[in-house]
Amino acid sequence: MTDPLRDLARQVDQFARDRDWQQFHSPKNLASALVVEAGELLEHFQWLTEQQSRELGPEKRDAVAAELADVLLYLIQLATALGINPIAAAQAKLKLNELKYPVDRARGNSRKYDEL
Amino acid sequence: MTDPLRDLARQVDQFARDRDWQQFHSPKNLASALVVEAGELLEHFQWLTEQQSRELGPEKRDAVAAELADVLLYLIQLATALGINPIAAAQAKLKLNELKYPVDRARGNSRKYDEL
Amino acid sequence: MTDPLRDLARQVDQFARDRDWQQFHSPKNLASALVVEAGELLEHFQWLTEQQSRELGPEKRDAVAAELADVLLYLIQLATALGINPIAAAQAKLKLNELKYPVDRARGNSRKYDEL
Amino acid sequence: MTDPLRDLARQVDQFARDRDWQQFHSPKNLASALVVEAGELLEHFQWLTEQQSRELGPEKRDAVAAELADVLLYLIQLATALGINPIAAAQAKLKLNELKYPVDRARGNSRKYDEL
Repeated sequence: MTDPLRDLARQVDQFARDRDWQQFHSPKNLASALVVEAGELLEHFQWLTEQQSRELGPEKRDAVAAELADVLLYLIQLATALGINPIAAAQAKLKLNELKYPVDRARGNSRKYDEL
Repeated sequence: MTDPLRDLARQVDQFARDRDWQQFHSPKNLASALVVEAGELLEHFQWLTEQQSRELGPEKRDAVAAELADVLLYLIQLATALGINPIAAAQAKLKLNELKYPVDRARGNSRKYDEL
Repeated sequence: MTDPLRDLARQVDQFARDRDWQQFHSPKNLASALVVEAGELLEHFQWLTEQQSRELGPEKRDAVAAELADVLLYLIQLATALGINPIAAAQAKLKLNELKYPVDRARGNSRKYDEL
Repeated sequence: MTDPLRDLARQVDQFARDRDWQQFHSPKNLASALVVEAGELLEHFQWLTEQQSRELGPEKRDAVAAELADVLLYLIQLATALGINPIAAAQAKLKLNELKYPVDRARGNSRKYDEL
């Protein structure tokens, strides 16, 4: 039994070690790289309508998948560098969001929890 | 046998459905939300030295984990919305990076592949 | 005769000097701070439709103005730190864009210049 | 007597009109484009040390200037679209920051105002 995210973390860690890149991979730099890739991801959508963004052709979808992959790869490296379990952190956040956004008040409403 | 990332994807999908939020969750908007959270993640590091970013105290580390979680939650939702398998996309990207950054030329070097 | 942007550059430079903040204001850190503020700016729009974003109420508009101001303040500081004249740089970029996006081919078309 | 920023605003407005691009230039989309360009700006610094970022060579500095210009051009367009005077907004923010960061408490300290 394997955890695909943990496998990926091991592989990308090895990738960086093989290239002696840990010296560049401070959490500060990894967080910068993550936001840079997130910007490249958004670039694909910036002039599309929301509807168009729901109907990407296969070529565009592949390009988006490659940028999404970059974000995930930096996210995993940042998590590893800081000893954070990303799945556990996301589970905890989801639990918190359930308290902040109760179904009856949040339904059909995009406002922030402090404006509900 | 379970895949924790897939479980998380199901949970966050249900969370959004319960609140009737799919109407707001176009890929365009999810990509915006992802970069916004990536910015909040970076905010924790912006005035730190690289060395300080490697030595976060437990409180700061928890705050970073919460932002990292937000990024991951939007990443998963964007992947689901577009029918992208994030692990497979990251594996494919890592393979590509192995070709773009051969060990002998990339070792100890932070330059982009087209400047190696 | 005064140039309001240059006046602002002088004031924000003095503001940072008075607080002994130049030590934190490396170009790398200023560029991080700029993107963090740009994310906060985008946060105001992330769940709005494009139409709603064209019809902000006065309170939301003021909040957006404050974030836009933060972006501009970091942009000016980064320009000063690197000896860049932001107006001249923008004029040069606009000239370049005129060549990359000729009116007859770019009209009504949001594609990138290399896809025109 | 002219205000260079206002001149620039007029030119970039004309540039967009000539190409019939106002349809794409909702505030939401302009804010997305701004953060995308801010990410491209940060990309130049992500693997540099702070010290290296203070000592850019002329070629790198020109590349940074071009990205900074893109940020400024979208910032101006967003300000125009929302009827915001960017200089006035920045002046107001600077005044507010003087209250939030009094010299005696903020000197040599990079903490956020609510942690001073």
